[in-house]
Amino acid sequence: MIFPELIVNSVTWVSSWSPYLQFPVLATASESEYAPVVLTGVLLSLVVIYLASKLGGELSRMMDFPPVLGELVGGVVVGASALHLLVFPESGAIATDSVIMNILQFIGNLSPEAVTSVFQSQSEAISILAELGVIVLLFEIGLESDLRELKKVGYQAAIVACVGVAVPFAVGTAGLMFFFHTPAIPAIFAGAALTATSIGITSKVLSELGHLKSREGQIIVGAAVIDDVLGIIVLAVVASLAKTGEVDILNVIYLIVSATVFLIGSILLGKFFNKTFVTIADKLQTRGKLVIPAFIFAFFMAFIGNAIHLEAILGAFAAGLVLDETDKRKELDQQVIPIADILVPIFFVTVGARVDLGVLNPIVPENQQGLIIAIFLVVVAIIGKVVTGWSVFGQPGINRLAIGVGMIPRGEVGLVFLGIGAASGAIDKPLQAAIIIMVILTTFLAPPFLRLAFNKQSGETEELVEPADLIG
Amino acid sequence: MIFPELIVNSVTWVSSWSPYLQFPVLATASESEYAPVVLTGVLLSLVVIYLASKLGGELSRMMDFPPVLGELVGGVVVGASALHLLVFPESGAIATDSVIMNILQFIGNLSPEAVTSVFQSQSEAISILAELGVIVLLFEIGLESDLRELKKVGYQAAIVACVGVAVPFAVGTAGLMFFFHTPAIPAIFAGAALTATSIGITSKVLSELGHLKSREGQIIVGAAVIDDVLGIIVLAVVASLAKTGEVDILNVIYLIVSATVFLIGSILLGKFFNKTFVTIADKLQTRGKLVIPAFIFAFFMAFIGNAIHLEAILGAFAAGLVLDETDKRKELDQQVIPIADILVPIFFVTVGARVDLGVLNPIVPENQQGLIIAIFLVVVAIIGKVVTGWSVFGQPGINRLAIGVGMIPRGEVGLVFLGIGAASGAIDKPLQAAIIIMVILTTFLAPPFLRLAFNKQSGETEELVEPADLIG
Repeated sequence: MIFPELIVNSVTWVSSWSPYLQFPVLATASESEYAPVVLTGVLLSLVVIYLASKLGGELSRMMDFPPVLGELVGGVVVGASALHLLVFPESGAIATDSVIMNILQFIGNLSPEAVTSVFQSQSEAISILAELGVIVLLFEIGLESDLRELKKVGYQAAIVACVGVAVPFAVGTAGLMFFFHTPAIPAIFAGAALTATSIGITSKVLSELGHLKSREGQIIVGAAVIDDVLGIIVLAVVASLAKTGEVDILNVIYLIVSATVFLIGSILLGKFFNKTFVTIADKLQTRGKLVIPAFIFAFFMAFIGNAIHLEAILGAFAAGLVLDETDKRKELDQQVIPIADILVPIFFVTVGARVDLGVLNPIVPENQQGLIIAIFLVVVAIIGKVVTGWSVFGQPGINRLAIGVGMIPRGEVGLVFLGIGAASGAIDKPLQAAIIIMVILTTFLAPPFLRLAFNKQSGETEELVEPADLIG
Repeated sequence: MIFPELIVNSVTWVSSWSPYLQFPVLATASESEYAPVVLTGVLLSLVVIYLASKLGGELSRMMDFPPVLGELVGGVVVGASALHLLVFPESGAIATDSVIMNILQFIGNLSPEAVTSVFQSQSEAISILAELGVIVLLFEIGLESDLRELKKVGYQAAIVACVGVAVPFAVGTAGLMFFFHTPAIPAIFAGAALTATSIGITSKVLSELGHLKSREGQIIVGAAVIDDVLGIIVLAVVASLAKTGEVDILNVIYLIVSATVFLIGSILLGKFFNKTFVTIADKLQTRGKLVIPAFIFAFFMAFIGNAIHLEAILGAFAAGLVLDETDKRKELDQQVIPIADILVPIFFVTVGARVDLGVLNPIVPENQQGLIIAIFLVVVAIIGKVVTGWSVFGQPGINRLAIGVGMIPRGEVGLVFLGIGAASGAIDKPLQAAIIIMVILTTFLAPPFLRLAFNKQSGETEELVEPADLIG
């Protein structure tokens, strides 16, 4: 605070000593001028993001909900809906809306133009970090997904997954277009967000209830894995559709084919690459000898995914599936965890921060349409997944309700859809808020519902579950 | 490649369906318009950076040099000096100079204005990632530095460190100003870069030679730790000086005092915070329960460091020193490693990429001055550290030459100085290249020199070291 003019003067001094140089100074001051202030803003934003994610995550866990929900809600609290610490220009905010920018202006005594420039650069940097976060998340989901697991639960899981994608997507999209006159693209995006099942949340809840290894648990986890793959193809299709602006059947077929070819092709090619990867990783001796080759592969696949007009996350997921098949799997998993821990929360918190829940305030008359959409989406989201239990055949005495309820939580996968839809501009703010409410409610309701569904079964089969186990 | 018009058309379709919406689309297309292309560029840049760092690092290690040197040279190869894959606007490059931008333009059929905008955003994103890399590096160096270690080697190490900072700084700065008529600020920056000793490289070379636990080894490591702290204070002073543009004695005193108060104050406060940190980390139950609180602390300290006009890395280093004193040290160290593995190479490779070694081509007459500067810096860098061995007192029979030679490698710490000097615009390109040559040569020469120095001693004391041990 003693030298508030230091930063703004940095341009002046560069030009003041440059005449004395033997060589011309080629550096343009314009870009690097505010670089230290941008860094200060990014650091402060990251502190806010991590605080929001940890406070939200821990509170959520204490209330027996999945931590990821808390991270999202934490983002809502620090974002455009409440504290305005973390706001983004693409949702219509200007620099003076951002509390962090006001802090930087106070510290650095910046001009309004400087603040606007810093706000823009800082928001872009946080957005890129969030994108890298979701890429690492999908890479990690790929690493945790197991193709061999699918073979065991076989057809049952595949049918549950397909029904669980088709029904909510069809009912959601058609209902939005028919009842609410939503245009095709946003209706399809919302429908696509309804198809997701969070493998992370589902398997966590199942293990908390002690039902992960049950027949129902196996089918749910298998279906969630297949749903993950289907969901990513649906997302790639929908996101690419959004880019063209119209529902082009040939385009849909092209995208389904290219997504399938890309995913299956990279897994098949991966059979050969696996050995090369292990050989390379074994030969390397310097730090990061495992994680750097893995990230070269993941980022290269993500780059290809983006470059062929699919999605970066599809490439990262495929890379994860491929590397999951290597002997290095466990070691790699272990090393990806801390990287995901610091990058993934940036994604969830910024998704929450971008949403303005204010549009769902029922007191404002214009908001009532948005709220009705949210109620509609929640109903479709629950019913569309519960029916999947009744698509299971040849399994007498199976708890169909538990299977259906197990597929309900949308969690991080639903948020991935929302994040990409919001970033592409395809989903307007009331629909974003409606989807986020759907994601929150399905994920909040699933754990108690699943407990009830299994309890009912347990009561019938005299296999009582102790209340202590339920809370554990 | 089938839909080359997809990306450029994304604005059109947003406006084409927005009239049908019930709510106005608040998102401005201008910022998010090229967001997927920026992401594609960032991903491709990261692939290039990681490939350069791993190829360079491994080749360097195979030639028995520290891997970090290879990462730097890898950066030089992919950067402005050779392949032009990774170039930056602030070093005078335009979008068409960048091979990556040409690839993106080919894939996305972008307009020249779009390419310029994408180039700017992508370069800013990579620069921020590199800044986060050096922050994480200094946090890790802080975590690895041990205050208790210093107490054992005591005065000897402190004197070696002080002489090793004072002599190269004074001789280097004065020499540049007197012989080469370099202006004060760049001369001081170059002098400051001469003060560094790489604790990482030094301790690695010592352990490779089996001399880490010897009396000489203990003094070298202790001095390198103190040198690290001194170097960061010198860097903070120099960088802040660069911002004001003149050598202001009061400012120097203020900065030395504030850097010392900040560092020592945060360590003292850290004694209390330690327990709070452990208590918090023990209470947390969700993923990232150790690494997220640690990064909140590190980034907050880095923010404070930047905000009080010191350096972000000073805060990160202090945070590392504080957390090194907790019981969580080992666990945290383990988790920071993969994070550093993926972020730190971005820093080293971009430092290398920003330097244009072309200015040191001796065939071009204007370059000869730069080359002479490089030779001068290398001589000062070696002699200025070798003399430190003779500042040791009360240790009869000690290998003074080995101690002096052990302080020679500048390594990553020298590059930190260079990177910050280059980013602030304080060092012109010939001087940057001269410093980088000094860093490369001191780090390349130190391992064989140190081997010779210890061998001489070993021969005299009949304590022969087997050649196999030397290579190991």
